[in-house]
Order: sequence, then structure tokens, then C-alpha cells
Amino acid sequence: MRKVTNKGRQTKQGSADSGVSLRLALAQVNGLVGGFKTNAEKVKSACAQARKVGADIVLFPELIVTGYPPEDLLFKKSFIKNCRETLKKIAPYTRGLTAVIGFAEQKGKHLYNSAALMCNGKHIGTYRKTLLPNYGVFDEKRYFTEGDEPVRFFLKGAQIGLTICEDIWGESGPGKTLSKDVDFILNISSSPYHKGKGKARRQMIIKRARSYKCPIAYVNLVGGQDELVFDGQSLVVDAKGKIITQGNSFEEEIIFAEVALSPKNRKPVARGIRSYRAPATLSKANIKKVPQLPAGVYRKKSEEEEVYSALVLGTRDYIHKNGFSKVVIGLSGGIDSSLTAAIAVDALWSHNVIGVLMPSPYSSKGSIDDALALAKNLDIKTFTFPIESAMKSYDSILKDAFKGTMPNLAEENLQARIRGNLLMALSNKFGWMVLTTGNKSEISMGYCTLYGDMAGGFAVIKDVPKVLVYELCHWLNREREIIPKNVLTKEPSAELRPDQKDTDSLPPYELLDPVLLRYIEQDLSIEEIKVAGLSKSEIKRIARLVDLNEYKRRQGPPGVKITPKAFGKDRRLPITRS
Amino acid sequence: MRKVTNKGRQTKQGSADSGVSLRLALAQVNGLVGGFKTNAEKVKSACAQARKVGADIVLFPELIVTGYPPEDLLFKKSFIKNCRETLKKIAPYTRGLTAVIGFAEQKGKHLYNSAALMCNGKHIGTYRKTLLPNYGVFDEKRYFTEGDEPVRFFLKGAQIGLTICEDIWGESGPGKTLSKDVDFILNISSSPYHKGKGKARRQMIIKRARSYKCPIAYVNLVGGQDELVFDGQSLVVDAKGKIITQGNSFEEEIIFAEVALSPKNRKPVARGIRSYRAPATLSKANIKKVPQLPAGVYRKKSEEEEVYSALVLGTRDYIHKNGFSKVVIGLSGGIDSSLTAAIAVDALWSHNVIGVLMPSPYSSKGSIDDALALAKNLDIKTFTFPIESAMKSYDSILKDAFKGTMPNLAEENLQARIRGNLLMALSNKFGWMVLTTGNKSEISMGYCTLYGDMAGGFAVIKDVPKVLVYELCHWLNREREIIPKNVLTKEPSAELRPDQKDTDSLPPYELLDPVLLRYIEQDLSIEEIKVAGLSKSEIKRIARLVDLNEYKRRQGPPGVKITPKAFGKDRRLPITRS
Repeated sequence: MRKVTNKGRQTKQGSADSGVSLRLALAQVNGLVGGFKTNAEKVKSACAQARKVGADIVLFPELIVTGYPPEDLLFKKSFIKNCRETLKKIAPYTRGLTAVIGFAEQKGKHLYNSAALMCNGKHIGTYRKTLLPNYGVFDEKRYFTEGDEPVRFFLKGAQIGLTICEDIWGESGPGKTLSKDVDFILNISSSPYHKGKGKARRQMIIKRARSYKCPIAYVNLVGGQDELVFDGQSLVVDAKGKIITQGNSFEEEIIFAEVALSPKNRKPVARGIRSYRAPATLSKANIKKVPQLPAGVYRKKSEEEEVYSALVLGTRDYIHKNGFSKVVIGLSGGIDSSLTAAIAVDALWSHNVIGVLMPSPYSSKGSIDDALALAKNLDIKTFTFPIESAMKSYDSILKDAFKGTMPNLAEENLQARIRGNLLMALSNKFGWMVLTTGNKSEISMGYCTLYGDMAGGFAVIKDVPKVLVYELCHWLNREREIIPKNVLTKEPSAELRPDQKDTDSLPPYELLDPVLLRYIEQDLSIEEIKVAGLSKSEIKRIARLVDLNEYKRRQGPPGVKITPKAFGKDRRLPITRS
Repeated sequence: MRKVTNKGRQTKQGSADSGVSLRLALAQVNGLVGGFKTNAEKVKSACAQARKVGADIVLFPELIVTGYPPEDLLFKKSFIKNCRETLKKIAPYTRGLTAVIGFAEQKGKHLYNSAALMCNGKHIGTYRKTLLPNYGVFDEKRYFTEGDEPVRFFLKGAQIGLTICEDIWGESGPGKTLSKDVDFILNISSSPYHKGKGKARRQMIIKRARSYKCPIAYVNLVGGQDELVFDGQSLVVDAKGKIITQGNSFEEEIIFAEVALSPKNRKPVARGIRSYRAPATLSKANIKKVPQLPAGVYRKKSEEEEVYSALVLGTRDYIHKNGFSKVVIGLSGGIDSSLTAAIAVDALWSHNVIGVLMPSPYSSKGSIDDALALAKNLDIKTFTFPIESAMKSYDSILKDAFKGTMPNLAEENLQARIRGNLLMALSNKFGWMVLTTGNKSEISMGYCTLYGDMAGGFAVIKDVPKVLVYELCHWLNREREIIPKNVLTKEPSAELRPDQKDTDSLPPYELLDPVLLRYIEQDLSIEEIKVAGLSKSEIKRIARLVDLNEYKRRQGPPGVKITPKAFGKDRRLPITRS
């Protein structure tokens, strides 16, 4: 595993003017869905750290008690009961602090996505999320009732407003309403990643702070959960939108900030806002000791590094949280399996990754050499299973049934399925999870074999378009060769028949990817898509293949979402359609 | 295919008192998602039939123009444009009639689930669905904005209110609001089936008619759409809840009714209801000719027949609407593959169903005989592929890697996967869709092999618990033997190792199924589940296996939903969880 070192975080401390200064801890922790005990431990430990540095307030992500997103587990009474009991258990951990903790709150027939306001070991108030996202990967209206009351609390003479994720994404909404009265807005989020999301989120928060005319502290979840990965990148900005501190992407950490507030109303007006007051004892307790704030280290990542980190964390968490430690990957000598193996090594260490070469008579010598070179670069163990004997045995079983037919997809797919079976046999025998290696471009086009190369537990790069696969590999090789040079330069081929090339079936990837982006991620129609070098009929054929192959994707394993629209719950298309 | 004959429908004509009498046609048609042309043709043909019998009003299902549910196709501008243009094309078909036609309506940034009111060839008004279901299989809040205005229209002096599906499911709501003013409520629906849904729906409509104090005409979609099947069972009831006429389940047909209305308000009050008026010319045109109404034939089905019909239609539509005509099924001689094959034959005729026997050294002579007897009873063609040579070839490829290990699941799963590969080879070679044969009980427990017996395009009985599988087979055999007697009486076995029985791994199905019902369909916790004959720890083990095997189900093909909660979009559980 290549360790990423953190250096150079800019932690600007807000200048203390005539107003109040508050010390914050933002716990961007890695939660586990249904992991009440684990999640409570994370809260306990973060509270202890916050106390140690004399923090006034500690923030935890949205629904941290249940993990996010809990999906239909929310329909189980026992799950909600578990959440309620865990919250009670958590309360004393907040001794000496004010804490904001996301949980699922049952009230009569209604379930709310709520934030518990805890002060000095007591749950003193609750805010219920008002804006419930029900688009993209979100189904919050399936579970929750909308809250209808803004909430603020008073601490050290300052008025502080509570919001949850979506509440501040719109220009208007609960954040805006609150900002007329409060001096500071807190937001607890579980906001999933896609390429560029960190930047978009940062810009949004800066814009809001300026329009609210008050500082914002934003905490976000970290970690992989099925097809989602949460990137952290928590943030504190001042009223002018200047960044006071920010959390790293894809790392579990607690970040600290000193925030200067300029209270707007010394005599607060009610205006239909539910108000709570932190006990005076609490404020006094914290004023006594003012230790130095630990200096955080923020390291800016390039776009490639950001995506790569998302894939590594998403993969590691899927493997570990599902109780696996080792993975097995079919190595074809191609670029997709090479990148997948590199990610797996960074997620799990070399000794937990096993590569399998499964040459057929159509495999080139080069492919085998390239796969072995990769395994050497990554320092992973390999098996080599030639598959010709299995191919022959199927041929002989099917001989009569296939009499008089020409070799076609049936024979090609059998090779891929023999390989899938061998990997699954290793999985079943030794408890290794199979990682599949398909990229978004080929999965879009159905250029992959169901139960063959699609067979496995996790599809690491299923949301990475082929052109980006190349970019990530070049980035990986920036210091030394990890992906063998020949893998990067040779023409892509599935090697399922003699002299096969991807371009026999597909347009070149640098033309294909822009079409897929427009058709899949942007929902443009064939008429609206224009890509130089491709005719209208070629674009039509691409769109048709995307549509026709929905049935295949439906049976593929989950993988990390890294684009604005991934296959999975982000894109719900019927299989049956005209 | 065994043809079901219709006989004995009771079409009671509403008695014409001092009020108005209206003649209705309810077109319970089989739509196609995205099939704008096909759907428009269905509207055209139904309008022609309605005109022929002098109907005043013809009703079509919810979103019939787009097909239901269109899911994320609604995000495509071109799809909405197609819908708008189709609606325009449809308008002239309604000449001489008043028609209510479901469509997706874009208005500025908002999309509505709407009903077009067309009179004599013109689109004169629109009602927008107010209550949008966002639970179970429904995601309507993902797409649509809620309408906020009740709509009525005047025809022959009567006031008629429009509602869409969910609008009348609640005690209060838009239906109730309208009923204070109108004399008649129309409801257009696309309401998916599960066992007992027809009865529940009928009871609900009768209850509503009594509480609204006016007749209700309810039209419902027919047909399979991915994992859903729509059952029709359209209904007209009078103000006392007496059934005037009803449509058959799972059959595309137009049903007719004469409904006597007792107008409540001759001088209608506005009360914030948007009102339209059918042109006077229209009423006159219809009064002239009063031909005899065609006598419909309604046939009540037993519960087994109802479920069986759902499976047949769901399967037929999935195959045909996806462009297939033939299917291939692995026949093990067990009850699941026998039932699946029988359903396929009823859906597609014998000559479109191919059975494949794939005996291993662990297959009993009895299993082969039973499979052949079934094929004979169903008059289907079979292939026989002994798989031992393929098993040996995998053993030899894996020999070194598996050295020193004991045979386990790995070797068992290989057998299932060899069979999956052979079926898929036939599929790829000849264009036949593979039907999988797993039932709900074993899919719940993960007692099935991913990429093995789970490999295929459609999982016909995936939502049928094992006990119900037996009940359906007994029902099938009511007149003559279709499922061989030995299949019904022998003990279930996967035959993947010598002398294996299902009960080696699972509790008896008559104990297992009630636990699964409570845990999966009712979301009860382990503490709440009590089933005589099973200890708390056995129940715990069942629940744990259900949870652990979510990853397998996620990669299985779709199949017909016939229970209140099916695996699929009805039940959205995380794979990764504590």
C-alpha cells in the first residue's frame, strides 16, 4: 500500500473581533450501516478528542447513529429501537461539550431524519431535516417525513442554527430562513462523492456563507457503502466565505477550527424558530482551559488522485465491511484488470490480492507477459490456469446441439464463463472475494459477458469510463512503472477469437466516451448528441446498445460511483421497453 | 397452452331512476413502456369499440400513453416530447366520445402524472394526480410534482370527478374532496398485482363508493413490466357499493357498463374545483343510437389460478416485449423447474419451450425419469447433456490450487455453474431466453448458486414461496397429471453431492416459509417471530442467512412479483451492514 502523506493544511483561525469565539471539532468519521455499536464508539472517541482540545461544539455526520443510507432497514421496528437506545447510550459521551449527532427519529407514525442537540451529556433538543432529497441515489421521501420547524440554540451568547445536508443546497430553504436570525449555521451531511463533487460542494458552501452573512461549519461522512463512497472534505468557512479549515478527502479524521462570530441580535426574536439554550455551566467549563489547537494537514489532490482515492476507499470498505480480507482478480494483461489490481493492492496490501491468469489458445504471448509483469510490479501472487481443456469439454458436450452452426458469441462467452467459474471456485474454496474488472464504457455497451467477466462480488471500476481508465494508469505511473508500459500502449482486445480488437465492435473510446457521457449522464436524445467523427447512425447504434444491455447491468455486482450518474440506483431504467 | 374460457360474468345494468344514465367503456389494455405507437393504437381501437356501442365515456389506465412505470425514461426530454406528440395524435381518435387518458405532462420545470380529458376529438382539460405513491415499488415523487386542484367535468347534466390511482386509496384525499360535489368518480389506475390485491382493491372501491355516496368507475392496466404484473380487474360500482360490472384478471379487454346517476347539485358550486364542460353536440350525438351493450363474461378465479395467471402473463410479456419467442429451462426433475416449465408452456406454447437435462454422477435415475415424464406431459423438446466431463476438466485445472483441501461448496457450485454455462451457450447460439427456476424460499436463504442455477433472463417463480409452489402444482394437476406425481411426493434435493437433501441445510419448508413471511414481508424482528417447531436460535439463523444473501439476490434476474413484498425494487436493503 502506498501511503499518502498529508502536508500543508492551511488552518486559518478566524480573527477574534468584538464578538464571540467558538472552538469546533468536526468528526468526519467512517460509519457503518446498522453498526450501532461501532458508530457509538466513533462518537465516544471523537468526543474525547474534542474535549481534550477544549472544543465547544463537536459535529457528527447525518444519520451517523444508523449509518448512511440505511435504506429499508428503517422499516424494521427493531432497527429504530436500536437507534433510539444507542442515542441514549451516546448522550453521556458528550459531557462538557455541545454535540450535534444525526439519527433516525420515530415520533408516532412519522420517521424523521434528525439531528440530536446534546449538551453536557444530555439530549436537550432535536432538529428534523426539512428538505428530503428524492432524486439520483436518494430515496429519502420513501422513509422520512419532512420537518417543519427551524431550530437554533444559544451558546456563549451566540445564536447557532442547525441544518442537515440538503437544507442548505438550495438558494432558499431552511438555511436561508435561519440565517436571518442566527450568527452561525451548522450543517451535518452524508453527501456521496462523484468526480468534482468536493469542489462543487465547497463553492456552494462559500456562496451560502456570503448570502447568509454568517460562518458555516459543514461535516461530511467518510467511507464506502455499497455503490456509494463518501468523501469527507468537511469545511468551515467564515461569513465572507473564506475557508477557515477543511478536512481531507477519503480520510477519517477530526478537524478543528476556531470561529469568530459577530452576533446579529443580542436580543433574539422568536419568529417561529424553536430555540434551545446550552446550560451556562457548560460555557464556563470550556472557557477555563484553552490548549493549542492541533494543526491539521490538508493536502489538495489532483482530479486523478481524488478519483483513485475514491476507488481505493470504496473497494477497501466494501471488502472489509462485508467481512472479507482477500480478493482474487482475473489478470488478462489488459488495462482494466491492471488498474483494478493496482487499486486492490492500495486498498488491501499486496499479500491480500491474488491474480489469476487464464490463457486460452487465443491469448497472445504478450498478454501473459504483461499480466506477469503487472503482478511483479504489484508484488502479488498469481495462479495460471490454461482453460483449453475446459473449452474442449464444453465443445464436446454441445457438439450435437450445435451441429451445423458457425462459431459465434456462444463459444466466445463460454471462455469468459469458464474464467468466471474458476475465479468463483477459488472464492468458494478460500473465501476470497472476486473483483470484476469491467469499465463503464464496456458495461454501457454490453461489451462484457454475464456470468463471465461480470461474475464477482465488487466491480471496482464499473463507473470509470475507458478514457479515464487510461488517465488513472498514467497518473499511477507518475513516479515509477506500476502498470507495464506495454499495457498502456497496445490496442485493447478481449482476445476471445483470433486477432480480435475492441474496435471491431466499438468505436474508438475517445469518440465513444463523449457519446456515453451525453446519453447516460446527461440524458440527451440521439438528436441532441453531436460528436465529431461519429455519424448520426453510429450514435444511434451506441444509444441502442446502451438500452439493450440494461438487463446485463441489472445482474452485475455493485461498484464505486465516481460520476454524476452511475449505473445502479442512480439510474433506474426499465429493462422492458419499446 | 391451456386456454382459459370466460363464462358467467354478471353485468348488472344500473337502474335508470329520475337521474342521468351514462354508458361507459373501460379499456383495460396491455401497454408497453415507451411504446408510444403501440399504446396509441390500443387507444384508437378501444375508442372505435366504445363508439360502436354508443358509450359516453371511455377510460384508459394511468400513464397509458407512456406505459407504466416509465421510471427514469421520464428524465429524457425526447421521451416527454414523444408523449406530448402521441397525445396530440390520439385526440382525434376520441371523436364522438369523452375519453380520460393517462399521460406524463411537462409544465415548465414540473412533470405531472396527468389525465387528459378529451371530448369529441379535442383535449379540453387536464387533471394532475395529487397523491403520489413513494413506497413499495413506487418512486413517483422521484419524477412528479403533486397536482393541487380537483377537476370535474359536466356531461349530460351530471358532474363527474377525475382521480388517478392513489387519489382514492386513502379515506380522505382528493376523491373525498370531490365527492362532496360530483355525482360520479372516475379513477384511472396502473395498480400492480400481488396475491389478494384484486380483493383488497375491490373492497376499497366499494367502501369508497359508500363513503363518497356516488358510483365509481375504476380502470386498471393489464400486463407484465419487468418485475411487475398488472392484473386489470377493472370495476364499476354504484353508490351503494354494488358491483355493476368487473373486468377479468390478467386479460386485456374492454368492459362496458350503464351507470345511473342521481345528480346531487343541479346548480353546481365552484369550491375551488376546476371544471370543464363537454360540448352539447357530443351528448346529442350519443343519445340517438342506443345499441345493446355487449354482455361481458366475468370468471372468478381461485387464489391458485389467480397467482398462476399472474406468473403466466408476467412471463409471457417479459419474453415477448423483450423480443424473444423461445425459452430454455434446465430440468432437474425437481418441483421448481417442473412448475417453471409448465408456466412457460402456458405462456408460450410447447414448441417454444426447450428443456435441458444435465445429469451429474450425483443425479438419481429418478430425477432423470421425472424430468423426462414432465417433458412428455408438457410436450416439450429436450436435450440431455451429461456434465461429468466438464466437472473433471475443472477438477484437473484446479488440482494444484485445491491440493490438500476437502471438497466443499466450491465443487458443488461448479456443477451448478457448468449447467448455467450450458444453458447460456444455447441461449447465445439460438437466441432462446434462459428461465431460472429458483423459488422465493431458497432465494431468501441463498440456497442457490450465483452464475449457476441463478443464471438466466427471467426468474419465473422467484417470488413464490416453496409451500405455494406445491399448492400451485397440485392445482395444476386438478384435471390430469401435468407435474409427475413423483415430483410432488419425493423429498427436495439439489443433488450436488451424494444423498443431499434440502433439509440438510434448511428447516422443513412448512416451518421456513412462515418465518420468511414474517421477516421479509412484514419486517418483524427476530424477537417478534414465533413459529411452532422452531427455536429462537433457528429463527435467528434464518434471519441471518436472509441478510447475508442480499448480495446474491442483487445479481439475480427479475421475476414476477406476486407477494406484498418481493425482492427487487420493493425491498431496498443494503448489502453492506453490520
